[in-house]
Amino acid sequence: MNQVYVGLCGLGTVGTGVVKLLQNHAEEIKYKVGCEIHIEKILVHDIDKKRDVAIQAEWLTDNPDELVNNAEIDIIIEVMGGIEDTNLLLEKAIRNKKHIVTANKDLMAVHGQKLLRLAKENNCDILYDASVAGGIPIIRSLTEGLASDRIQKIMGIVNGTTNYILTKMTDDEVAFEPVLKEAQDLGFAESDPTSDVDGLDAARKMALLANLAFKMEISLEDVEVSGIRTISQEDITFATSLGYTIKLIGIASINDNGKVEVSVEPTLLPKDHPLAMVKNEFNAVYVYGEAVGETMFYGPGAGSMPTATAVVSDLMDVVKNIRLGITGNEYILPQFQKQLKEDDEKYMQYFIRMEVDDEAGTFQKITNVFLDESVSFQKILQLPSEQKKMAEIVMVTHKISKQQLLNSRENLKGLDVVNEIISCYRVDGED
Amino acid sequence: MNQVYVGLCGLGTVGTGVVKLLQNHAEEIKYKVGCEIHIEKILVHDIDKKRDVAIQAEWLTDNPDELVNNAEIDIIIEVMGGIEDTNLLLEKAIRNKKHIVTANKDLMAVHGQKLLRLAKENNCDILYDASVAGGIPIIRSLTEGLASDRIQKIMGIVNGTTNYILTKMTDDEVAFEPVLKEAQDLGFAESDPTSDVDGLDAARKMALLANLAFKMEISLEDVEVSGIRTISQEDITFATSLGYTIKLIGIASINDNGKVEVSVEPTLLPKDHPLAMVKNEFNAVYVYGEAVGETMFYGPGAGSMPTATAVVSDLMDVVKNIRLGITGNEYILPQFQKQLKEDDEKYMQYFIRMEVDDEAGTFQKITNVFLDESVSFQKILQLPSEQKKMAEIVMVTHKISKQQLLNSRENLKGLDVVNEIISCYRVDGED
Repeated sequence: MNQVYVGLCGLGTVGTGVVKLLQNHAEEIKYKVGCEIHIEKILVHDIDKKRDVAIQAEWLTDNPDELVNNAEIDIIIEVMGGIEDTNLLLEKAIRNKKHIVTANKDLMAVHGQKLLRLAKENNCDILYDASVAGGIPIIRSLTEGLASDRIQKIMGIVNGTTNYILTKMTDDEVAFEPVLKEAQDLGFAESDPTSDVDGLDAARKMALLANLAFKMEISLEDVEVSGIRTISQEDITFATSLGYTIKLIGIASINDNGKVEVSVEPTLLPKDHPLAMVKNEFNAVYVYGEAVGETMFYGPGAGSMPTATAVVSDLMDVVKNIRLGITGNEYILPQFQKQLKEDDEKYMQYFIRMEVDDEAGTFQKITNVFLDESVSFQKILQLPSEQKKMAEIVMVTHKISKQQLLNSRENLKGLDVVNEIISCYRVDGED
Repeated sequence: MNQVYVGLCGLGTVGTGVVKLLQNHAEEIKYKVGCEIHIEKILVHDIDKKRDVAIQAEWLTDNPDELVNNAEIDIIIEVMGGIEDTNLLLEKAIRNKKHIVTANKDLMAVHGQKLLRLAKENNCDILYDASVAGGIPIIRSLTEGLASDRIQKIMGIVNGTTNYILTKMTDDEVAFEPVLKEAQDLGFAESDPTSDVDGLDAARKMALLANLAFKMEISLEDVEVSGIRTISQEDITFATSLGYTIKLIGIASINDNGKVEVSVEPTLLPKDHPLAMVKNEFNAVYVYGEAVGETMFYGPGAGSMPTATAVVSDLMDVVKNIRLGITGNEYILPQFQKQLKEDDEKYMQYFIRMEVDDEAGTFQKITNVFLDESVSFQKILQLPSEQKKMAEIVMVTHKISKQQLLNSRENLKGLDVVNEIISCYRVDGED
C-alpha cells in the first residue's frame, strides 16, 4: 500500500494546521510511516469561503456523505467540533470501516466509550490524544509509556484560558474581570467563556484522563466541578503569604480499595510545586504512579499547530496500523467496575477564609466547632478586616475528609460570631 | 499465544524492580497485552547470593548460553550493564531471533546503531526507553507523540546525581565537596562519581536523544562535554543575583541548514524557566518542536522502580508486537547524513566571570577586546574582589558565536589587567 486517503472534517484553526503539517512535513512523514498520506475530501460549511492554506478546490464539500460513504477514504480526521451530529457522522464512518482521529474532547467525554467499542467491533482505530492538553502526548504516555504502572493520582492544569487568567491575576495583581477581557482580546478566551471559566472544559478532559488512568468508565456526571469565578485578589494574597499558588486543578485519584474521585476545582499548591510553575496558557499533567513516582508532562494546551501536531501524530499511528494490518487493537475495554468515593472517603487539606466578629471568645467558638469534627490545623492566620470590628481568619487544615469539612462549614454558619465563610479551597501537592 | 518467556540479564536494583513489577502487576499486565509473561531464566554472577525478591531457584544461572541459546526464551531483558561483553551477548541473542529490552545507555550510546540495524535485519525489536531518564517515557514521546513534528532543540537535565548536587549547592549554599559526600552517603552518587560529575553519563544520553530527534547517527565523540567540578559558590551567587539558576544541561540543536550541535555543560537558565525548577534527583527533557512549540517531560531519572517501570512498559510493547506478528518495525533508519556545526555556526549567550586589576582604564581595555569581536552585552556587574586592588567583573553577552567567544577569551588572556578568567558558562532558555 503506497498511499492512504484522508477525509478531513473541518477547516478551522486546527484543520488548517493539519493541512499545513501534512504539506510542510510530507517527506519526513512519508519516511516514518512508509507511504504517502493524501487528502481526498474536506468537509466545510462554506465552500466559497477564502482559505489561508493551499487546497485543491475539488477537495471541498459541504456534504458529509462524500466522506463517510466514500470508498476511497481510509481515515476520517474530525476537527470540526460538535457533539450529537458529529457523533452520528462518526458512527456511520466507523460502520463503513473507516478509522477516526479526533481532537474533540466534548464528543469523547459524552460518547467516547460507545464510539471506542464500536470501533473495536469494526476492527477500526479511533485515536484522540489531541482532545486533551493539545500538543502534549498525554494519552499516549498514560496508555503506553506508563503502561506497566498503576496510576494513583493525576493532577492536571488542562484549561489554558483559566490558567492564563490566574497567572495574570497572581503575577500582575489584577482582578478577574479586566483580566478576562484582556484574555478575550488576545484570543486566549472565548466571547462566551463559560465552558472554560466554570471548569466544564477541564471536567471533560479529566473524565477522559480518569478513564484511561483507572481503566473504568467514568462519565462527565461523576466529575465535581467548580470554576474560577469565586477567586478574588484577597484569596490570592492570603494564599501567597502562606506559601501557596492558586490554580484550577483537575484531580483524579484512586484509593487502595479501588474507589475513585474526580473533580475540577481551585486548588492551592505549594509555590515550588512543579505545577505551580506552569504559567499562562500552558497545560501540564502531573501523574503519580505506584512504581514510577512523580512525573509531569508539560506543553501547549491548545493552538492551531500544537493541536495539529497531536492529530497528525495519531494519524501516523493509524497509518502504521493499517499497513501492518493490526487496526482495532489500540482500545482496551475498561477492566474495572466504576466505584466512586463517598464524602467520608475523600481526604484532603482545605484552605478556609472567614470574616468574623473581632471580639473576645470568637476564636474559641470557632476552634470548638472544628474540635467537634476532629479537624486540626497546619496554618492559621488572623488579620483585622477592612470592616470595623471584624477580623479575617484564614486556616489551612491537616488532611480531613470532605464530610468533616461539610459538617464544620454547616456548624460555623450557625455561629453568631461568623459573618461569612468567604472562601473554601482544596490544598494539595504537599505530600 | 498465551505465554511469552523472558530471560533477565542482571538481578541488581533494576532487575529486582522488574521482577517485582511482573509479579505485583501480573493481572493488569496480562489484561493489557493479552497473555502471560513468564520469567524463564535469570543471569547472575553469584547464584548463591541471597536475594530480596521471591524467585525460583531453577531460574538462576551464571551461564549466558542458557539465555541466548534457549529456544524457549522470546525476549531478553538486559539490566546488568557493561558494554563489550554485553554487546556480544545481545548480538548473539538477536541472531537467535530474540527481542531485546535494555536500560543500558552506555551500551546503546556506543553500539546502539549497530544493534538496532542487526535487530531490524532479524525482524527483532530492541527497545531502550529506560536507558534515558529512567521513568520518563521520553523516547516514546519523541518518536511517537511528537512524530509529526520537527524537533529543533532539546535541553535536558538527564543526570540525577549532578542535579542533586547543584540543587543542594544552590538552595543550602554548601560547597561542592561536602555535598558530593552527602550525595554518596544517600546513594545519589557513586563511590567513583566521575561518570556523573564530569558529564559523561549525560553525554551518552544526549547522544541517544539527538539521534532520535534529528534522525542522524550522532556518536558520543560528537558531544562536547564539561562537568560540574568548576562550579563554585561564587558562580552560583553571581548567577542568582543576575536572575539565573545554574544547571548541568545537555543541549542538542539543529539549524535551518540541517547542521547539529550536541553538548553537555553547566548552563545558566532564567530562574523561572521550567527546567530551573527541576530539583534534586529529578530529570526533565525540554523539547522545542517547530509546530508544537515548547513541551517538557519531567520525572525520576533513576531508581529501581522508576527504571523498572520503563523496562516493563517496553517489554509490554514487544509482547504486543510479537502477538500481532509485527516485530522488527519499530526502528527507522537514520534519514539524514550527520552534519555538525562549526564553532562560527553555534550561537548562544555566555556568562563570563573575570578577576581584573582595579585601576583606571581596565574596563575600557576589556570592552575594546569584545568590541573587536563584535560582542555586545546584556548584563554587566562589577564588584570589588576579596583580593586587594582587584575587582570581579561578570558579564552576560548577547547571542554570539562560539568562535567569537574563543577569540575574545584568547585576547583577554593577553591583557595585563586581566588576572584570571574564572568562569565561562553558556546562558540559555531566554528566547
